[in-house]
Amino acid sequence: MPPATGATIGILGGGQLGRMLAVAASRLGLRTHVYEPAANPPAADVAHRVTTAPYEDAQALAAFAASVDVVTYEFENIPTSALDLIESLRPIRPNRRALAISQDRLLEKTFLNGEGLATAPWCAVEDAADLEAALARIGTPAILKTTRLGYDGKGQARIMAPEDAADALAAMAGQPAVLEGFIDFSREISVIAARGPGGEIAAYDPGENIHKAGILHTTTVPAHISPNLRSDAVLVAARILNALGYVGVMGVELFVTPGGLIVNEIAPRVHNSGHWTQNACAVDQFEQHIRAVAGWPLGDGSRFADVQMLNLIGDDVLRVPELAREAGTAIHLYGKAEARAGRKMGHVNRVKPLRANSARG
Amino acid sequence: MPPATGATIGILGGGQLGRMLAVAASRLGLRTHVYEPAANPPAADVAHRVTTAPYEDAQALAAFAASVDVVTYEFENIPTSALDLIESLRPIRPNRRALAISQDRLLEKTFLNGEGLATAPWCAVEDAADLEAALARIGTPAILKTTRLGYDGKGQARIMAPEDAADALAAMAGQPAVLEGFIDFSREISVIAARGPGGEIAAYDPGENIHKAGILHTTTVPAHISPNLRSDAVLVAARILNALGYVGVMGVELFVTPGGLIVNEIAPRVHNSGHWTQNACAVDQFEQHIRAVAGWPLGDGSRFADVQMLNLIGDDVLRVPELAREAGTAIHLYGKAEARAGRKMGHVNRVKPLRANSARG
Repeated sequence: MPPATGATIGILGGGQLGRMLAVAASRLGLRTHVYEPAANPPAADVAHRVTTAPYEDAQALAAFAASVDVVTYEFENIPTSALDLIESLRPIRPNRRALAISQDRLLEKTFLNGEGLATAPWCAVEDAADLEAALARIGTPAILKTTRLGYDGKGQARIMAPEDAADALAAMAGQPAVLEGFIDFSREISVIAARGPGGEIAAYDPGENIHKAGILHTTTVPAHISPNLRSDAVLVAARILNALGYVGVMGVELFVTPGGLIVNEIAPRVHNSGHWTQNACAVDQFEQHIRAVAGWPLGDGSRFADVQMLNLIGDDVLRVPELAREAGTAIHLYGKAEARAGRKMGHVNRVKPLRANSARG
Repeated sequence: MPPATGATIGILGGGQLGRMLAVAASRLGLRTHVYEPAANPPAADVAHRVTTAPYEDAQALAAFAASVDVVTYEFENIPTSALDLIESLRPIRPNRRALAISQDRLLEKTFLNGEGLATAPWCAVEDAADLEAALARIGTPAILKTTRLGYDGKGQARIMAPEDAADALAAMAGQPAVLEGFIDFSREISVIAARGPGGEIAAYDPGENIHKAGILHTTTVPAHISPNLRSDAVLVAARILNALGYVGVMGVELFVTPGGLIVNEIAPRVHNSGHWTQNACAVDQFEQHIRAVAGWPLGDGSRFADVQMLNLIGDDVLRVPELAREAGTAIHLYGKAEARAGRKMGHVNRVKPLRANSARG
């Protein structure tokens, strides 16, 4: 049974994902209270209430939690102490286990492999000896990544040949890391899937992703994969959601390889590669997430159009006047004043009617 | 050239139309400042800023106008004194003439007939003698309406036979009125059309409306009309927009009769019968309106799905738990706490892929 109109969803983080979550909540008659350390975050324009305070401010966190019915988040990098305090007052959805796993590549890969899901070959690396042993096992090229966090290609170093090892290790700045073997993949796809509190699952059609300089550039739906692979991808996502007792939307990035699907990473939140759902589905990923965390039934994520999402990074936003004139193009800007290099300023969804051979769903 | 991110649109009125305008503005990176006499209006949940003050508060109006770049409105019933004050400080879009005409049925019908557009036969009625003469000319059944305002069937009285005349006149409570002849129409359709500051025009596919108890019940797109009538309807709307030098979105209600299209009424704002555009077009009526008033190029209003909009009036909102489970159904609630009879609480858009014989509009 949906909560009454006027119930409030607390959102940790006030970036563009929080902004679009707040808009989705408004469609369901729900209010949002955004908690964000930085002043004037993108979500503040459309949230009912905003708290500007650091994650170390116990009083602000307690007042925030007391003012809402349930708490969710738009990014993974939230201090444990803040989560502990909030969880003592209100439910946090998705749950702490999902967050802990997604914050730590070692936990994530161990969890995924434990569920029988393939990942790139990997080894934990704490020092030069570990790295030498890992390279001996995995070979080159490989990629060294810090174990914790990492977002849009930060905290990563490629090792094309053994002599790159020292520089790569230095780039980790002493943080624990994991060495991953390169995957010979033909495509990267992602599945945006949701699980409700009662265990029901809904998944969007997989999208095909192209990155540029480590940042998502486009997501295209439908992905150019076989119906079998499409089902496999959704089943992988469902297995992860069920194993975690997850509530909310998750983004699951997958590599398509000759040997089948390999899980690249999971994000316990709405995901950039799911922005296309805003203009091609009756219920988009943002509303689906709000539905799940608020205890509504999950909505219909069937796709009724073909679509390509294009991110507007930094100065790409200068293209808006031209994009605004394009047929079939929906614009989504985040209200950020300054277009710094690498900063996600907005995105567009280029929509086309379903192709005849592209089945609904 | 679109205004910079962070520009602010002032919106007079904080109801559901203001709420959905604020959400649309956020997609374009624009902020909204809502002016509304009542506390906690629906638009407050998603507006960047809200002023709660009566339309007679000159100081509040001036501060509001000074804080925004351009002013628009979500309803027609705004006191002239407030508009005069605001217009001395900031542009009002759509313009005052459109507002004056839509506020007064006599002005509206005179304007429409002057443009060569058909209306129902009508006579101005100020007293019993006028009404007797009008009934002699127009006959019964007919409908007596107050000249000014009137919304969702208020201020109207049917005259089925001459002996109903006295009661109908009494229902006008001494206000000037207009007697309209009944129209023998097969369908009511409406066109949602927009005009930009440079004179460009964009129209959505006409929708077919069903009313219940004087309140819009459903809008269905495509309307069951011939391609010729579809073009005619769009041309009628374009003529009105051009004649008024209009900037923004307008709703034009039309009757389909054996003799052609008859204009029922015009609304100088986003319109309930255009809510379907939220889930079937890349750019919906709310964004189209914001684009026009903010000086952006108009967007693509092509329809890429068939859709039926169903209003949720009063207790209809109790159906939400069931509607939330429906395939292809998008829910839009307005955040109103109390479901009074006749109150618009929300709407749903039921979306289906385009029918094969339904051309992209």
